[in-house]
Amino acid sequence: MSEEVYYPEFSPHFPTLVAGLQGKTVAVWGHLRPDGDCIGSQVALVRVLRNMGVDAFAINTHAVPYNLGAFIGDTPFYQPGSPDLPVAAESITVDCSTLDRIGASAAPLRGKIILAVDHHISNPGFGKQNWIDTESAATAEILAGIFIDCGVHMDAITAQALYVGIATDTGHFRYPATSHRVFSLCSQLLDSGAKPAEAAHELFEKESIGRLRLLTLFLESLEFHHDNRVCIGFIRHSMFGETGTDRSQAEGFVDFPRSIDSVKVAALIEEQADGSFKGSLRSKRPSVRVDQVAAAFGGGGHACAAGFECRLPLPGFKAELLRLLEKTVSA
Amino acid sequence: MSEEVYYPEFSPHFPTLVAGLQGKTVAVWGHLRPDGDCIGSQVALVRVLRNMGVDAFAINTHAVPYNLGAFIGDTPFYQPGSPDLPVAAESITVDCSTLDRIGASAAPLRGKIILAVDHHISNPGFGKQNWIDTESAATAEILAGIFIDCGVHMDAITAQALYVGIATDTGHFRYPATSHRVFSLCSQLLDSGAKPAEAAHELFEKESIGRLRLLTLFLESLEFHHDNRVCIGFIRHSMFGETGTDRSQAEGFVDFPRSIDSVKVAALIEEQADGSFKGSLRSKRPSVRVDQVAAAFGGGGHACAAGFECRLPLPGFKAELLRLLEKTVSA
Repeated sequence: MSEEVYYPEFSPHFPTLVAGLQGKTVAVWGHLRPDGDCIGSQVALVRVLRNMGVDAFAINTHAVPYNLGAFIGDTPFYQPGSPDLPVAAESITVDCSTLDRIGASAAPLRGKIILAVDHHISNPGFGKQNWIDTESAATAEILAGIFIDCGVHMDAITAQALYVGIATDTGHFRYPATSHRVFSLCSQLLDSGAKPAEAAHELFEKESIGRLRLLTLFLESLEFHHDNRVCIGFIRHSMFGETGTDRSQAEGFVDFPRSIDSVKVAALIEEQADGSFKGSLRSKRPSVRVDQVAAAFGGGGHACAAGFECRLPLPGFKAELLRLLEKTVSA
Repeated sequence: MSEEVYYPEFSPHFPTLVAGLQGKTVAVWGHLRPDGDCIGSQVALVRVLRNMGVDAFAINTHAVPYNLGAFIGDTPFYQPGSPDLPVAAESITVDCSTLDRIGASAAPLRGKIILAVDHHISNPGFGKQNWIDTESAATAEILAGIFIDCGVHMDAITAQALYVGIATDTGHFRYPATSHRVFSLCSQLLDSGAKPAEAAHELFEKESIGRLRLLTLFLESLEFHHDNRVCIGFIRHSMFGETGTDRSQAEGFVDFPRSIDSVKVAALIEEQADGSFKGSLRSKRPSVRVDQVAAAFGGGGHACAAGFECRLPLPGFKAELLRLLEKTVSA
């Protein structure tokens, strides 16, 4: 045990869990469209269990995304329906706020999850055991703390996976949940072989020239309205062809107009192949309700992040959007 | 003292330094075009000295940049020539690799700097005392370690300033110097009142429209060379007028070309008012030594981050830079 005990409620139960799983095959489930915290937590828990004599494997309905593939090493990952899928005696979920987040395989597992490890406030505690801490920035933070509390050996792939989970779920140490514990755990993960620069290289330095060209075109399109409180950027469908990109590569562009001091609502309007428009709206404060604007176009989302689709011609659509946004930023 | 001693060579000398400065007025100099590590280190050292009875103030040839103003609090900052500039009995430099980095005021101070605190590998040790650690990611890291080693009281502004210095000089925890010590110190700075989310809000969500326009012009200027392993972007002096910005607002632009998968060296070339050029070079790996390229133009820096100034006409300068970079990325 280190001097600092990170998760005194959970850590004493970890050795008991591992003892009870000896000789069993265990599935460690992640959620649909897995992110860094999901994959990092799966990699780490599977590797630690395997190293402690438990035949664990990771399973996700959707495949590991391209930008996280470098972090899984030789950890066994499967998708439901894989011909060589092992038969699991027990199932654990990580980073899933509900059992349905694992996808269509949820039904037969209802009531049978032996452990849910999570940090989402909406988690009802659907496992037989639940290690849920909503003040943790990441599920990987909880696992890292438990492993360090228990003096569990972590190999370099495990440490890096946990680091990536923490780094991605804190917005690379920018979100409010970035705590003393987050930094303290990261310092210890580095001792076990986590490499921040290599993680950042995989996460942030693998961009394509085309994506940067698409970003340039998006930035050129920015329009400011309503005393610079509204900023709208456009992606024409032809831009994907011009830059050799596809829609997935515009991910995160709306953060650029959002970074402007005066901007209260940032909008990314993307022209679809059929000429209709897809809108993404972001506000900086929950009191500026972009979900209500999205709802006016038949869409939805959260107070600060919402989206919609629209088949109106651009001039009419833009006038209507600006009219609704003026009300929103003046509220 | 904490359990971990961060800077055993420097920390024992800090109480002696402070004792010798009692009753004296001390100037804490930063470098030209001060960045987050420079300002953060100045804020922290000035505040700690003042809290320990030394009449310290911060001084910079160039003003505190707009995006760092929120972090200085009531720390006294001056520029040379200020009518109310205190008369300093002693001078200290922070984050200055040479004395000339403080600007035109260097000459009368030559041989008289009582202490240089720095992490640049090119620092010759021009102070009477030199606390130089080239393995540290930031000068603020060295100061944070010394203060914690010595059990010095840090107020929240001091802790936040040191956090900002470390966060900015590690590329927000992305560069290779991001170490166990970096994270361990950050965890302790949070205990003293550093607020990562507030720092990130000031650093990343307070952009001006002009800066985004300047970024757009910079991205439009990007050129790829040597099989896309080298990317060069240009900022013409006229762009500042066009966008209502100044030189300080181009900070960080070089990270955009650096994010491209194929790019091994990214360069930002900025035209000065007098028609000369300032170059900032970034590589992704210490084995790609951009400091050597900068040195060929009389500049310096770190293996992965270096800079220089050049008075050659653009065509000749660009040809020479590309020739040197071809060798560097092929090494």
